[in-house]
Amino acid sequence: MQQQQVTKKNERVEEVFNLFITHIQRFLEEAKLNHEEYTNFVKWADRLGRKGELPLFADVFFETHVLNAMYSDKPGTQPSLLGPYFLEGSPLIESVPGQPCVLTQRPDEDGEVFYFKGNVKNTDGKPLANTKVEIWHNDNSAKYSGFDSDAPKYNLRGHLYTDDNGDFEVKTIVPLPYSIPTEGPTGEFLTYMDQHSMRPAHLHIMFEKEAHETLITQVFFEGDEWLDTDVAEGVRPDLMTKLEDHGDHKRASLDFIMRTDE
Amino acid sequence: MQQQQVTKKNERVEEVFNLFITHIQRFLEEAKLNHEEYTNFVKWADRLGRKGELPLFADVFFETHVLNAMYSDKPGTQPSLLGPYFLEGSPLIESVPGQPCVLTQRPDEDGEVFYFKGNVKNTDGKPLANTKVEIWHNDNSAKYSGFDSDAPKYNLRGHLYTDDNGDFEVKTIVPLPYSIPTEGPTGEFLTYMDQHSMRPAHLHIMFEKEAHETLITQVFFEGDEWLDTDVAEGVRPDLMTKLEDHGDHKRASLDFIMRTDE
Repeated sequence: MQQQQVTKKNERVEEVFNLFITHIQRFLEEAKLNHEEYTNFVKWADRLGRKGELPLFADVFFETHVLNAMYSDKPGTQPSLLGPYFLEGSPLIESVPGQPCVLTQRPDEDGEVFYFKGNVKNTDGKPLANTKVEIWHNDNSAKYSGFDSDAPKYNLRGHLYTDDNGDFEVKTIVPLPYSIPTEGPTGEFLTYMDQHSMRPAHLHIMFEKEAHETLITQVFFEGDEWLDTDVAEGVRPDLMTKLEDHGDHKRASLDFIMRTDE
Repeated sequence: MQQQQVTKKNERVEEVFNLFITHIQRFLEEAKLNHEEYTNFVKWADRLGRKGELPLFADVFFETHVLNAMYSDKPGTQPSLLGPYFLEGSPLIESVPGQPCVLTQRPDEDGEVFYFKGNVKNTDGKPLANTKVEIWHNDNSAKYSGFDSDAPKYNLRGHLYTDDNGDFEVKTIVPLPYSIPTEGPTGEFLTYMDQHSMRPAHLHIMFEKEAHETLITQVFFEGDEWLDTDVAEGVRPDLMTKLEDHGDHKRASLDFIMRTDE
């Protein structure tokens, strides 16, 4: 039984790699690269790989297509890319009844105060209590902690749980549109493609609940100038919300629907 | 004029990258990767890239397809892959008239003494005198100098020039079949594909002559057990020769035909 599973898994891996080789060869045939162009292309890919930018490149240019292929005809909230900036092990945000959870932040965290409310249901409309909600986003200099920022590792990262009605509320700051890294081979690629490097402002959010498919997605804000040309093509209609102005802070909310595990 | 050339070049780069993205997306659609499979695939590609194995992987699995697409219907000697083991700056082998050039080697170089003769003509049958002939191959432990070997950097590497008849002769040792590196992500891939890692024994050889297209190719030997299953699929019928046994040494020869520059 163990043996059968191993065999089945290897067959799937072999199938995937065979398709990969076939499609790259089709690319090479269609592109009709001469030897110099081939060499230049491989050198670019080598720089991309050595710099550790392959996950960035894949997430920005390919992950959305994987998700669209899988989910665009399924019920429930559409997933969006996990992206390269997720960190395992974020702190639990303690919740005080009737108060929003405050996302981990520096005492003097710069930015516009932001209250984000959400509700989580299943595809039958039943509220999903005690669902793990993981949130991470960039700071007011458009940087992610643990990557290009000197903020503490888990700054503007944390997880909490929905209440009995499937509700949660978090207090944080408004995230900013940001540029994916452009100084390396990914930026080189964008220059070649004559494409900007911007993503619209977004919250990353991930929901985990037993017997349900983990939902990894993002929340976007109406009016952002980069929504239509997001370099990573992560925007989906059901991931849009409106930032309401309340003088000294902003508020927004969005409902999420999780699919049951298949 | 300068501006036009730059624009034209960028358009070509954009065209190539667009085709690359399109074909990778087709691969992802056809493979129907779930998110976990996608993540595992990207992690493998990241390991490949960080280890610096992308050129190896590309040369072994893709370069031959580029060359076949370009040359299989053209006259002249078929090119074969440059591979990842070429080094710029090999020493000039001084030729003494009537004597074979001795390829750079250690005083006690292990291996079977081997005399290799060649002739270089153009596609009209005219001998190409003073053609630069660059040769490199592995040693009797199947290693390439400058890479996985502790031999001097240019051991079993050198260049020489054809005589007035387009002839050259080099004294070296018989190269060995060898395994491409298997301890990294390329080896992981081969394991998944249930494919061996061997290449048949070969000389690498490159010809340069003004007004002619540089010919990068390899020479293979009849009877080698890996000819039909070469992991890099580099073997071509017109690149085969026969190792003749002369007791204490072997001899072989092959004629080469260069294409004029287009």
